Amino acid sequence: MPLTENTLPTFPELIVRHMNSEHRIVIIGGGFGGLYAAKTLRHAPAHVTIIDRRNFHLFQPLLYQVATGGLSPGDIASPIRAVLKRHKNTRVLLGEVTTIDLARTLVHLADGVDVPFDSLIVSAGVSHDYFSHPEWATLAPGLKSVEDAIEIRRRIFVAFEKAEREEEPGPRQAWLTFVVVGGGPTGVELAGAIGEIANETLKRDFRVINPHDARICLVEGNDRVLSTYPPLLSNKAERSLRRLGVTVMTGALVTSVDPSGVTISSHGEAKRIESKTVLWAAGVRASSLGRLLVGSSSELLDRAGRIKVQPDLSVPGHPNVFVIGDLATYPHQSGQPLPGLAPVAMQQGRYVARLISRRLQGRPISKPFHYFDRGTMATIGRAAAVATIGPLRLWGYPAWLSWLFIHLMYLVEFDNRLLVLTQWAWNYFTRNRGARLITFEHRPDRPD
Amino acid sequence: MPLTENTLPTFPELIVRHMNSEHRIVIIGGGFGGLYAAKTLRHAPAHVTIIDRRNFHLFQPLLYQVATGGLSPGDIASPIRAVLKRHKNTRVLLGEVTTIDLARTLVHLADGVDVPFDSLIVSAGVSHDYFSHPEWATLAPGLKSVEDAIEIRRRIFVAFEKAEREEEPGPRQAWLTFVVVGGGPTGVELAGAIGEIANETLKRDFRVINPHDARICLVEGNDRVLSTYPPLLSNKAERSLRRLGVTVMTGALVTSVDPSGVTISSHGEAKRIESKTVLWAAGVRASSLGRLLVGSSSELLDRAGRIKVQPDLSVPGHPNVFVIGDLATYPHQSGQPLPGLAPVAMQQGRYVARLISRRLQGRPISKPFHYFDRGTMATIGRAAAVATIGPLRLWGYPAWLSWLFIHLMYLVEFDNRLLVLTQWAWNYFTRNRGARLITFEHRPDRPD
Repeated sequence: MPLTENTLPTFPELIVRHMNSEHRIVIIGGGFGGLYAAKTLRHAPAHVTIIDRRNFHLFQPLLYQVATGGLSPGDIASPIRAVLKRHKNTRVLLGEVTTIDLARTLVHLADGVDVPFDSLIVSAGVSHDYFSHPEWATLAPGLKSVEDAIEIRRRIFVAFEKAEREEEPGPRQAWLTFVVVGGGPTGVELAGAIGEIANETLKRDFRVINPHDARICLVEGNDRVLSTYPPLLSNKAERSLRRLGVTVMTGALVTSVDPSGVTISSHGEAKRIESKTVLWAAGVRASSLGRLLVGSSSELLDRAGRIKVQPDLSVPGHPNVFVIGDLATYPHQSGQPLPGLAPVAMQQGRYVARLISRRLQGRPISKPFHYFDRGTMATIGRAAAVATIGPLRLWGYPAWLSWLFIHLMYLVEFDNRLLVLTQWAWNYFTRNRGARLITFEHRPDRPD
Repeated sequence: MPLTENTLPTFPELIVRHMNSEHRIVIIGGGFGGLYAAKTLRHAPAHVTIIDRRNFHLFQPLLYQVATGGLSPGDIASPIRAVLKRHKNTRVLLGEVTTIDLARTLVHLADGVDVPFDSLIVSAGVSHDYFSHPEWATLAPGLKSVEDAIEIRRRIFVAFEKAEREEEPGPRQAWLTFVVVGGGPTGVELAGAIGEIANETLKRDFRVINPHDARICLVEGNDRVLSTYPPLLSNKAERSLRRLGVTVMTGALVTSVDPSGVTISSHGEAKRIESKTVLWAAGVRASSLGRLLVGSSSELLDRAGRIKVQPDLSVPGHPNVFVIGDLATYPHQSGQPLPGLAPVAMQQGRYVARLISRRLQGRPISKPFHYFDRGTMATIGRAAAVATIGPLRLWGYPAWLSWLFIHLMYLVEFDNRLLVLTQWAWNYFTRNRGARLITFEHRPDRPD
């Protein structure tokens, strides 16, 4: 039975009494964009429904810390229901969207339920892109979900264990070689953290191998890492990475990935790296919901499948359907498309929520979305980072402190913030990573 | 190539120089027994090898907190290598023991490696026992490993989500019904925590269901819960459980488990409970290593497969092979066998380690193992517990404070202790459980 307005009387009476309008706003995705839209709609005269496949909001910028044993998944996740529990006009649905029917204005879920909308906000994000090599996905996992992070953590720490047990020097070095593909912020952060693990965290842990012998290669196609940052900061980042023992390979493209390593093409030359642990931080592909919205061959999609939105973030021809966050592509004031960053998604979520609220009050906004760039940052290990804050360029320790401060400020729920701070203070002073668990999927038949 | 003494020169020279003896001590299992044996052997003139399937020691007494979203796995786990990193005479092997060859004095690992020993300490623990109904394992998961805890957490929080989406009252109530089988400390703690989740944590989270309507049944075969505790404390525990909305069913045996619920036999009468979430906290079975050690039909095994050890915890006929922790059964001063508790395993680990050290120094101990009973405790929700401390009987808030204090004292690494305290302080004041993530196994093809 479809969940339509007619079944809504199961909402407590109290809530229904406080509603001034029957306008239905559906938000797809509980990431930064969707969650901030929902938060902004708290007092809107409307029924708000937020749909996500997961029951929690994930603080993506710190996911690499989970993948490298510095934090636990619970530290960087907040249950969406908990964040929105005081929003009496909002319900949270755990479900997977399979179709968006713009003609009938409803969203269809995998479990057969239809959710009708008057306004729709699509914030479904992106996943990895393996450049038409889907077979690389199992060989070189990417970092988007909690499960990805736990799998990467497992691979990193298993590699050191295998190296300790391996007696042949060749295979041992392959276990001690880590390849990170992609020199954007995620790749830089992952490679830096692995450098730290090898040189600090595991320093005294083994008896046969010396973790310091680990080789960490960061492979980037452009001629510098962090290519969207000012060249000065790319330079500083490379220097910090080298100090952590990371080999930075720029102008290098991965041409094949197999279970024993990768082949790269660097300045026209093929090069082989024997490695048992390859991680993917290159390229993103828009959620398939993009194609569901505008058709797959549409000129409304960019190369990565992102939707080219109108100045008010709506889909051309559908003024009540908005796309925000990583799934949207929107020209920056500078002419470049906006980057796929949390602050962009958050500001877009707030903008769209206000736009809809104002419309409902009969006072529409005509001002287009304008991104207020507070800066971007990436961290490289324990006390180094690079950051742009307005006209400022920071690196090293000051950048790291700003990075720490800003990330803690944005952790959605206060309990997480306090915990993450405690954990970090401890990790910082002890160079420890207490969450370096090797875990598996659940098998009830496994005697444990 | 088997890893024998001859391959040991890969140990750094420095370590070998400091060794006075070539005596090889192998410890199987990094739980409380094995880890405390290894810690005590730090300065023993011997090569110590500790073998575990997992790379971390798990603080089992708090595992139910992970299963109910109060703590993250990283909070209650410490990498074994990190705990023992300053033990220059000790190496840690990640591996699974498949055979123990007492005649040739070596331990065989699943990956083909043989580890020879002069003294052996077996601390392999126990797993769930489904009373000859192995098919119940997938229907009613037990709580022993991190993976178990994450699976139970997934089931509990999925149940509330499903109930919210279910429109028929019958199935909705089945989703809101939780059955915990077994009224020992784990069952009591699990049922209490679910009661708290329903009545406190999720209070405002849903729009259709009222989590307060959840029904939590604790099914115990004996005539009281916590049957190894004084009757006064069983009484207090039952009262605390009822206050949290738990229905305590004593004298009730589970006769069948199926996907839609359980059938119990209570005082000769069959009773049906429709429930989508059944959790198993009844009965343990010794690790199969017990049978590997003494043969499967041996009179050296008790009914649960535990090994009846000598007064010095050795296996009869093998004075250099010791069994400690849950895998051993040893008569208490009182005549009853010692309970399967962390303090028992810890004291046994220390005893055996000292016994071996003293032997190596030519000053053997003849005093049998004596358990010093500091007391036992179980917690029921936020501010209630029951505890025996020597002749003292505590309940309610004072018992809870002692419980908190003692558990924090014993958390192996200091960083965990600090973190868990922060987390708890926050959970206590906010009634929140921030780690209530619904996660799955890793699937690289899953666009997320």
